[in-house]
Amino acid sequence: MKGGLVVNATGAVAADVLVAGERIAALLVPGFPVEADEVVDATGKYVIPGGIDAHTHMEMPFGGTSSSDTFATGTTAAAWGGTTTIIDFAVQAKGTSLLSTLDKWHAKADGNCAIDYGFHMIVSDVDDSSLKEMASCADAGVNTFKMFMAYPGVFYATDGEILRAMRRAREIGATIMMHAENGIAIDQLVAQALAEGRTDPVEHGLTRPPELEGEATSRAITLARVTGAPLYVVHLSAAQALDAVTRARDTGQNVFAETCPQYLYLSLEDLGRPGFEGAKFVASPPLRPAAHQAELWRGLRTNDLSVVSTDHCPFCFKEQKELGRGDFTKIPNGIPGVEHRIDLLHQGVVRGEISLERWVEICSTTPARMFGLHPRKGVVAPGADADLVVYDPRARQTVSAATHHMNVDYSAYEGMELTGRVEVVLSRGEVVVDGGGFRGSVGHGRFLTRELNQYLR
Amino acid sequence: MKGGLVVNATGAVAADVLVAGERIAALLVPGFPVEADEVVDATGKYVIPGGIDAHTHMEMPFGGTSSSDTFATGTTAAAWGGTTTIIDFAVQAKGTSLLSTLDKWHAKADGNCAIDYGFHMIVSDVDDSSLKEMASCADAGVNTFKMFMAYPGVFYATDGEILRAMRRAREIGATIMMHAENGIAIDQLVAQALAEGRTDPVEHGLTRPPELEGEATSRAITLARVTGAPLYVVHLSAAQALDAVTRARDTGQNVFAETCPQYLYLSLEDLGRPGFEGAKFVASPPLRPAAHQAELWRGLRTNDLSVVSTDHCPFCFKEQKELGRGDFTKIPNGIPGVEHRIDLLHQGVVRGEISLERWVEICSTTPARMFGLHPRKGVVAPGADADLVVYDPRARQTVSAATHHMNVDYSAYEGMELTGRVEVVLSRGEVVVDGGGFRGSVGHGRFLTRELNQYLR
Amino acid sequence: MKGGLVVNATGAVAADVLVAGERIAALLVPGFPVEADEVVDATGKYVIPGGIDAHTHMEMPFGGTSSSDTFATGTTAAAWGGTTTIIDFAVQAKGTSLLSTLDKWHAKADGNCAIDYGFHMIVSDVDDSSLKEMASCADAGVNTFKMFMAYPGVFYATDGEILRAMRRAREIGATIMMHAENGIAIDQLVAQALAEGRTDPVEHGLTRPPELEGEATSRAITLARVTGAPLYVVHLSAAQALDAVTRARDTGQNVFAETCPQYLYLSLEDLGRPGFEGAKFVASPPLRPAAHQAELWRGLRTNDLSVVSTDHCPFCFKEQKELGRGDFTKIPNGIPGVEHRIDLLHQGVVRGEISLERWVEICSTTPARMFGLHPRKGVVAPGADADLVVYDPRARQTVSAATHHMNVDYSAYEGMELTGRVEVVLSRGEVVVDGGGFRGSVGHGRFLTRELNQYLR
Amino acid sequence: MKGGLVVNATGAVAADVLVAGERIAALLVPGFPVEADEVVDATGKYVIPGGIDAHTHMEMPFGGTSSSDTFATGTTAAAWGGTTTIIDFAVQAKGTSLLSTLDKWHAKADGNCAIDYGFHMIVSDVDDSSLKEMASCADAGVNTFKMFMAYPGVFYATDGEILRAMRRAREIGATIMMHAENGIAIDQLVAQALAEGRTDPVEHGLTRPPELEGEATSRAITLARVTGAPLYVVHLSAAQALDAVTRARDTGQNVFAETCPQYLYLSLEDLGRPGFEGAKFVASPPLRPAAHQAELWRGLRTNDLSVVSTDHCPFCFKEQKELGRGDFTKIPNGIPGVEHRIDLLHQGVVRGEISLERWVEICSTTPARMFGLHPRKGVVAPGADADLVVYDPRARQTVSAATHHMNVDYSAYEGMELTGRVEVVLSRGEVVVDGGGFRGSVGHGRFLTRELNQYLR
Repeated sequence: MKGGLVVNATGAVAADVLVAGERIAALLVPGFPVEADEVVDATGKYVIPGGIDAHTHMEMPFGGTSSSDTFATGTTAAAWGGTTTIIDFAVQAKGTSLLSTLDKWHAKADGNCAIDYGFHMIVSDVDDSSLKEMASCADAGVNTFKMFMAYPGVFYATDGEILRAMRRAREIGATIMMHAENGIAIDQLVAQALAEGRTDPVEHGLTRPPELEGEATSRAITLARVTGAPLYVVHLSAAQALDAVTRARDTGQNVFAETCPQYLYLSLEDLGRPGFEGAKFVASPPLRPAAHQAELWRGLRTNDLSVVSTDHCPFCFKEQKELGRGDFTKIPNGIPGVEHRIDLLHQGVVRGEISLERWVEICSTTPARMFGLHPRKGVVAPGADADLVVYDPRARQTVSAATHHMNVDYSAYEGMELTGRVEVVLSRGEVVVDGGGFRGSVGHGRFLTRELNQYLR
Repeated sequence: MKGGLVVNATGAVAADVLVAGERIAALLVPGFPVEADEVVDATGKYVIPGGIDAHTHMEMPFGGTSSSDTFATGTTAAAWGGTTTIIDFAVQAKGTSLLSTLDKWHAKADGNCAIDYGFHMIVSDVDDSSLKEMASCADAGVNTFKMFMAYPGVFYATDGEILRAMRRAREIGATIMMHAENGIAIDQLVAQALAEGRTDPVEHGLTRPPELEGEATSRAITLARVTGAPLYVVHLSAAQALDAVTRARDTGQNVFAETCPQYLYLSLEDLGRPGFEGAKFVASPPLRPAAHQAELWRGLRTNDLSVVSTDHCPFCFKEQKELGRGDFTKIPNGIPGVEHRIDLLHQGVVRGEISLERWVEICSTTPARMFGLHPRKGVVAPGADADLVVYDPRARQTVSAATHHMNVDYSAYEGMELTGRVEVVLSRGEVVVDGGGFRGSVGHGRFLTRELNQYLR
Repeated sequence: MKGGLVVNATGAVAADVLVAGERIAALLVPGFPVEADEVVDATGKYVIPGGIDAHTHMEMPFGGTSSSDTFATGTTAAAWGGTTTIIDFAVQAKGTSLLSTLDKWHAKADGNCAIDYGFHMIVSDVDDSSLKEMASCADAGVNTFKMFMAYPGVFYATDGEILRAMRRAREIGATIMMHAENGIAIDQLVAQALAEGRTDPVEHGLTRPPELEGEATSRAITLARVTGAPLYVVHLSAAQALDAVTRARDTGQNVFAETCPQYLYLSLEDLGRPGFEGAKFVASPPLRPAAHQAELWRGLRTNDLSVVSTDHCPFCFKEQKELGRGDFTKIPNGIPGVEHRIDLLHQGVVRGEISLERWVEICSTTPARMFGLHPRKGVVAPGADADLVVYDPRARQTVSAATHHMNVDYSAYEGMELTGRVEVVLSRGEVVVDGGGFRGSVGHGRFLTRELNQYLR
Repeated sequence: MKGGLVVNATGAVAADVLVAGERIAALLVPGFPVEADEVVDATGKYVIPGGIDAHTHMEMPFGGTSSSDTFATGTTAAAWGGTTTIIDFAVQAKGTSLLSTLDKWHAKADGNCAIDYGFHMIVSDVDDSSLKEMASCADAGVNTFKMFMAYPGVFYATDGEILRAMRRAREIGATIMMHAENGIAIDQLVAQALAEGRTDPVEHGLTRPPELEGEATSRAITLARVTGAPLYVVHLSAAQALDAVTRARDTGQNVFAETCPQYLYLSLEDLGRPGFEGAKFVASPPLRPAAHQAELWRGLRTNDLSVVSTDHCPFCFKEQKELGRGDFTKIPNGIPGVEHRIDLLHQGVVRGEISLERWVEICSTTPARMFGLHPRKGVVAPGADADLVVYDPRARQTVSAATHHMNVDYSAYEGMELTGRVEVVLSRGEVVVDGGGFRGSVGHGRFLTRELNQYLR
């Protein structure tokens, strides 16, 4: 790759990148004479490490239906968007084991991915057996365990269960990921709304007030402090939750958080669009009043928010989202996004919200370090996997379901005009996307066993 | 350089480093075949970017005497310690111009430095003329201007003068560096101490309570907020000041701070050593009660403290420090340290206070980015200056004035045992230190014109 | 009452107090000529409003046993200590109604109290029926409803139940009282302790860390904010909880808190006394490390703690506390104290922790206003009930089970020397205690219907 | 006084008040038979302790002119508004002694006041002599010393001077009152405004940003912490300053603050009224953007603001305010208000911002306790001075310069409609105002020697 500006998290340098096989062999001053079979011209473009989306839900079962992207369609869409690694969630069904769950997810993904992938494990049962299995999962490369303070009766874990799992995580160096909303209180607000005949999509947002995300986040932080476990708060959406994270991080506690593009660009107003249109924007936590967005950008600048993932969980408007007509609690929760994360965050660079280096850090380097993929992923350096993106910062594009590659019939960002576009994507040395089309193959992607969080202190 | 672990701020990779002339030509996977005239074997060692000490005072005039290191002796000692760049302070004498001051400092340093160097400018007069000259200084590569809230009658600037200078800094993109102690209040405490016959070195610490550093830091932050100027707090020593910086950074304000090794390893108890021994430890701000140290380490972890510089300002015990026998206010202020910064901070890695990457970041990468030297300095990357250090993390050494290379007759760390040692140092491709001795030359070092702070947002 | 210094919450004045029947008829400048049948000489003494202990548990059922003071013995002991009103807790048994509970408690207390009394209601079932009954209770003079975030399986209420009850409280102007400890997490810590064979009384403290009181307090405050309900945190013991209350009060939220004498004078060390001695000090929340005490005194000064109640819940050491030998979870929870609250708090005046006026405010005026008894109680003013105490600030006494009047075989303060002593006590104009002995009668005390919290804003 | 509701800071009771000579002889249950020469019927009205305005400037010299109310006119107007005590400021002229200053002010006030009065002392010179005199002033009943962080060249004290004076205050138990604005920084902003030709009254506000009040308040608090002196922040106007006070008070530090009616009801918009109209609203600190008002009301509820005084400092629009046409720095600083403080604060009761008791506390009881006049003033109790106000809470009035009694040609509240009105005013037993007219006499008012602050802890 010649002529580009290589952007890493700590700086940008003009350099050529030599790929040998699946890996980067060298970074060289521009024009340094080396032999290469093929040359990608990156003149005037950025060369960045491939994106890592640490939060996706491909073909996830959800109340009788499934998220609409398979590993095949979802990872292909990811590649189109410059993401060369996803970390998806294996979901323990109650009464089954963690390892059998892992097997099941391997079976779904194996041979079906266009890019590399790893797994987090959602722990639904906290008992002696699953706690023991946590170590086996870690040995198998899955050392991040997600729990829910929301969804009573489904994924909900009690504070006692969380405490137990955190103590176990502490023992084995694993990180607990938390969906931090007070689901018990929310269910009460939901029951009241239904009792009062309030059933529109916007009620999904109104019954999940930001205070209850702030509360749960504070609680999770306290439980983490009591046990000494590392905590990673997923899909943080509310200023109150960010405040709790900021205060904890100020003390040096091992607390980390991600937000998602939808919380940076969409708001409660979208959830309140006329008719049933708001259903397209139903996810949990819900979209917040627009004033929260500036706080989230601030958190990305101060590193109180460390990562942006998508929580990609697509459900088609027809037949899927429509299940919730007349009862917002029946709307499948989730917003598609795996394809546009890098582009959407690049708007932050364009608008001056974040620096060029921070863009790369948020989209790739930090998730790599946080989730034990570094230095194999997340950086343009000799020895790293040749997951590389040539990004044209001046190209313009318009987001639309008509042109996107995700298997879902709408886009939450329909009509949004973006500056910047992925031009060429390499996954372990293979060109999988170039401007003209998809040149990769489903089956190319490999499972990644992950090391421990590099940020622990 | 073959066989080493190349440590950059965002990660460590096994790689060879090819130097061509003054610059790094390539980073290559270990063993990648390239031609080289000379090979440095770094097997089992770290290869890190040369250190940048952003706060030194060579041959600085101070009340009738001068700091005891010349640019020649001081930069040679720095090189011994793995520091390949210093940024020293040009000191405007009242009534003289900034540009003539710069000329004067160029005259001192030019041809006398063993390593590269830059200048900050201490502004003693704030008037139309000096404000205008600030832009000329910036054009000449000096875009950081230091002011003092301490030392009334000497360097002290009023809040009005600070406000004016900050407004000007805002206009030209410059950063104001601040010595943040409330000198007016301190002078009152000092007068009281002298009136009561308290004259020992420890009184230097007792008359400069940490609250008054916290106060001045808060005030500087407020003035920076009112004007929109970036602020860099030098030699932060007190938890109260760190709290103020932490709160400001939580809001995303452009506030940065450095601490120094003496505040991490020494304390008020040293200042109270029997006899006149405490004079060796007199610097401003003073050493603090030991409890502040843990807070400072926490700040380094959370990045509320971004840099560790030395505030190297050596005065010999004999004849210089001794000027203050019987009157602590006459003791020249300063502690030597330019030679041991990297080693002392490495102890933080050894003890688990900071990670390996953070060590490099604090010692080199962040100062490079903060002070506009990046990507030329502060990173091991193609195109960067070949300022490289081979560091042996397992070697052991004992600090002593008997063996150090600084021109001062004592060491503040006398007898301290350290793990890790600089083995080879390159400055722009020249080997200036190897295990056996100093192979560089006074005069090799060049003046660095600096770009703007990369952290501004 | 002639010659005394009348101390009210807002100041002390030399004045005579004329009682007519059950009420105060007049406050007069000393020596103002009025007719009186009987004269109490209060020269050199304080005349203060009778104490109000807003948190007692007389003859409370607790796991097969009952607290050892009946309403008769407990209110008599209270009178001895200058307390002329208690507010006890009626405890809803699961499956029974609130009103029948109230009837049951009326039956226990009616005709058996030496001083006036009111009730709070402990809500064990949150359902349509009990929520409806809350208004009836308020109409019957019981408008404060206590809930528990501790004691799963016994009193524990879920966050959803709390939310529902708070919404109801908001509607009817009632206040929710909260036992704020995260019982779910604590039970997990307890299970672990037992599993590891840790069974001594001190484990009661170690398995209930202060962080989990802080957490629950924050959570209760958030739920109160979401619903708009007033919140009164009972028996606050931990600095973390106080911080949460302080922050909420800084915003003007209707959040109030009480602490208890045991948290001001006793500590975790007492819980760790050799042998089974620590059982005497088992209460929930547990006694805290001694450093928390200074924070609580600070809270009393700043009014972030508004009230000191006793949480009087006596269990004899023999046969009751002893139920927990070999298993700390079997020790009945509670510490006796109703007799010594006013004396213990007076030590705060003696030591300079609080002012004379604040002592009266904490012990009497604030509970009167908080719990809707003012201006009938809590103040020395015309028209108020003649609940009056002549207090000798210079007398000295030693606390001992040998001399106290509570029906319990030990004192948590055994041997403690106190300055100040209650000399004469009037309850609604009747002398019930004078220096020589108890002159009141069980049966004199009347039930008090209470108005709403006067501090709501 | 019969039939009224006696409102004290801790509660309201229906009671009759018997006055004998200058003092209150008794409080009696309504209808209790006593002899009285004269009966004031207070049926349906409040009986409250006379107001205490702790911050006035009568006939104060200010740059060639003087505030337009004399002690005679100003105290008469105060009486009309239910204020029976003022504490005015004696102003040390540089180079003169404190005691001679006191003599001068006694000469102005003696025989010229309609109500009682005390003095604070403005310290303009901090030197050995004035520090020594502080004790003599305290002995003479003046134990509160005001200093300025604003007005360089006039009243401005350096931080060193403040530190010295605070240390002295600590020794003698006195309280330092502080005008907390960073005058040095403000003067720089003012110079810039004038240099840019910005001369309208609104510039007075724009050149004194709230951040600089917050900063100075924080600084004063730090200096008070270092010295251990009590601090009373006068005329607090900005949310930033309130935050600083709140945080300090949370720690239990002896920090107190007052605000003024103008900051509760007027805003920066008034300062920006068309033409030169804004000059009527020029005072320092300046009126703030309206959003600060809610914060101040919150502070009054939480007691982070303890007192409301007027900072009454009237200058006529004609010939006085007009001095500043074309140059806002020439506008005499001050807003009239002594007559309407109690009425304006009563609107807070009407609107539900504060309770009835809090109104009395803010207007009378707290200033009495803070400034050492209690229990002589500030409370309706036997033995207290019979300074009593019968207040009709339902009467309505409209504020206007046409009807007010202050000697100034405009009202800052012109046309404002108020609910509630002073009906009868007694000063030490004399009726000075009744609904029909002024019945008092200039010369009735006596100088009050004041005790120490009762809130110190």
